Amino acid sequence: MSLPERLQPPVRVLMGPGPSDIHPNVLEAMGKPTVGHLDPYYLEIMDQLQQMLRTLFQTQNQMTFAVSATGSAGMEAAFVNLVEPGDRVMICVNGVFGSRMVDVATRCGAEVKTVERPWGEVFSVEDLAPLLDQFQPKVVGIVQAETSTGANQPIPEIANAVHQANAMLIVDAVTALGGMPVKVDEWGVDVMYSGSQKCLSCPPGLAPITFNPKAVDVILNRRSKVQSWYLDVSMLASYWGSERVYHHTAPINMSYGLHEAVRLVLAEGLDVCFARHQLQHQALKAGLAAMGISFAAQDGHQLPMLNAVTIPHGVDDVTVRKGLLERFGIEIGGGLGAFKGKVWRIGLMGYAARSNNVLLLLAGLEQLLAEQGVSLEPGASIAAANQVYSAGR
Amino acid sequence: MSLPERLQPPVRVLMGPGPSDIHPNVLEAMGKPTVGHLDPYYLEIMDQLQQMLRTLFQTQNQMTFAVSATGSAGMEAAFVNLVEPGDRVMICVNGVFGSRMVDVATRCGAEVKTVERPWGEVFSVEDLAPLLDQFQPKVVGIVQAETSTGANQPIPEIANAVHQANAMLIVDAVTALGGMPVKVDEWGVDVMYSGSQKCLSCPPGLAPITFNPKAVDVILNRRSKVQSWYLDVSMLASYWGSERVYHHTAPINMSYGLHEAVRLVLAEGLDVCFARHQLQHQALKAGLAAMGISFAAQDGHQLPMLNAVTIPHGVDDVTVRKGLLERFGIEIGGGLGAFKGKVWRIGLMGYAARSNNVLLLLAGLEQLLAEQGVSLEPGASIAAANQVYSAGR
Repeated sequence: MSLPERLQPPVRVLMGPGPSDIHPNVLEAMGKPTVGHLDPYYLEIMDQLQQMLRTLFQTQNQMTFAVSATGSAGMEAAFVNLVEPGDRVMICVNGVFGSRMVDVATRCGAEVKTVERPWGEVFSVEDLAPLLDQFQPKVVGIVQAETSTGANQPIPEIANAVHQANAMLIVDAVTALGGMPVKVDEWGVDVMYSGSQKCLSCPPGLAPITFNPKAVDVILNRRSKVQSWYLDVSMLASYWGSERVYHHTAPINMSYGLHEAVRLVLAEGLDVCFARHQLQHQALKAGLAAMGISFAAQDGHQLPMLNAVTIPHGVDDVTVRKGLLERFGIEIGGGLGAFKGKVWRIGLMGYAARSNNVLLLLAGLEQLLAEQGVSLEPGASIAAANQVYSAGR
Repeated sequence: MSLPERLQPPVRVLMGPGPSDIHPNVLEAMGKPTVGHLDPYYLEIMDQLQQMLRTLFQTQNQMTFAVSATGSAGMEAAFVNLVEPGDRVMICVNGVFGSRMVDVATRCGAEVKTVERPWGEVFSVEDLAPLLDQFQPKVVGIVQAETSTGANQPIPEIANAVHQANAMLIVDAVTALGGMPVKVDEWGVDVMYSGSQKCLSCPPGLAPITFNPKAVDVILNRRSKVQSWYLDVSMLASYWGSERVYHHTAPINMSYGLHEAVRLVLAEGLDVCFARHQLQHQALKAGLAAMGISFAAQDGHQLPMLNAVTIPHGVDDVTVRKGLLERFGIEIGGGLGAFKGKVWRIGLMGYAARSNNVLLLLAGLEQLLAEQGVSLEPGASIAAANQVYSAGR
């Protein structure tokens, strides 16, 4: 074979469902000299990373660390550790990632039942109550920020109902963490996981996760071994804990990237960071509204960082996304599953949640939609977004 | 909490059991701009990476890719896909990684039996024959290059015996790949996996793996679902194949690093690269012999890239390793399991396998051993290594 050239990736504006734009500090950290996974320096970085992740998850949980794989492995780590064959597991499904939880829990040998809401809607306690009561699940799984629909699931009431039914709660915060409030201890979430590549603006490859003491207790008292050796928390605890027992070779440079990414979020301040995501979301929403584009998720439950919007009638999905990528370097996401060809998913995640990105996207989209024959008032979307920014100053 | 500073890792000389020294090109690639996991540019990089991995594994196997996690997850991917509950699995154990295979296969619900050899020794066909015959396993697992002992297991005869018994062979090439011949097709290996952080000299985080058509056929005809959603090859095939069906968000920048790392190995040429590892091993061995240090692995079966050597009598393991790290920045590995406190593991992997490293290590070790009261002829180890280099010119 002839060898490929050294790679030289194009510079993109990453406004899809993740990965998001990466802060230059983080890319720089990724390329720092590799040290060994038991090097005193690396152990210090692990300690700092754990401590920063606790602040980010708003938790005191000792068992807070980063799974050495992407966000999807975070989901798997949550379920394989908590669930044993024959356990009853209840999943709330209103999008792709709820459905994935069903698949993952089933592969753990669980008896799985679901409650469902249409895509784009969220669950109330009343939706869960009957099955909680009849099925008496050991574990309930729910997604806080459904990346496939842009719906924002209120967790506190759900957590309360789940605990009153003596079940444990696993929350998917892949898209939520770092972009909106996530309060593991206050809400009483038993296990929460996320990914490095959404609002943390680190490249994909790590999955922050936290287990509360009750969850750890359940894991340490399992009847059977965790089916995944790689994700077994009882073993990972000895590497991330003070004993530092070798388990697997940690992905050193990915950890560098995540360390810097989380540090940047905390340096900005969580509240400031969440407010920035909200402001950018409002500006984008105003701009899109001026072009007649509406949101797919339920009113009052729209995520700031994942804007799932309805593709205007008569507009070709792929032509527009291709135009954005090729002419402006902007990536936005297409729809998944039930939303395929019907929605675009516009990410405002982490470093991508800034005015420059929103204004550029609106300008580019206006150009492409006009070419597709959509009737638009020229410049109206930019004007609308600018109004939000000026009001927010 | 007070925030940590931006990280500034020390520059190490990585001569342990992995991670190894990373080529500057690879670190540079890790920090290149992130693109989306479905970006046309990234899909091209994936294609190139797969093609280069096939050359590296010496295979035509279509199902050749990189698992989105470290080498240990490569092991798990091999077993969870091939093995179903109740299957008979036979593992060859002569070190830590054979033992780990037993654990992983057991967690798949397999009935597991082992053949064992003392640490540092290798298996002959005669060792396997009785159990192959009586147990009739579906799958046999063996480690080519045992990272815990430095023993080099000849695979071709073993593969032949396994196939004559109608079993399938999984080979761990975590430490072997890129440092010594690994011929998947010629040897008839059914599944082989590796890690990015040994002789490929990329940071840890990815696990190259290859499944031959027979293995893929077994996977597609399973009675039960693969227990790991994340590692399910039947789903991963659709992402790495021409359909590009979204599965998980690939670790983009890790893939950049591996792409460049494999490109460098192929650009050097496999035979030249393997000869370089041999030469460095011979030079190190001569230098150590001049200091009275011998190898832990069986004569004639010593790995070039992982030199497990016996700690001289009366020398303190930790003092020496700490001295190497603190005074010279050199990391070497301690012993694992049965070898703890008894051996050092000196890696000559990938970019770390060069004269500068060998000479520096010998010089540093001589200084530290002399301080511990070992009787040495000053400079003899450097002279012995230099003789090997000069003869090799």
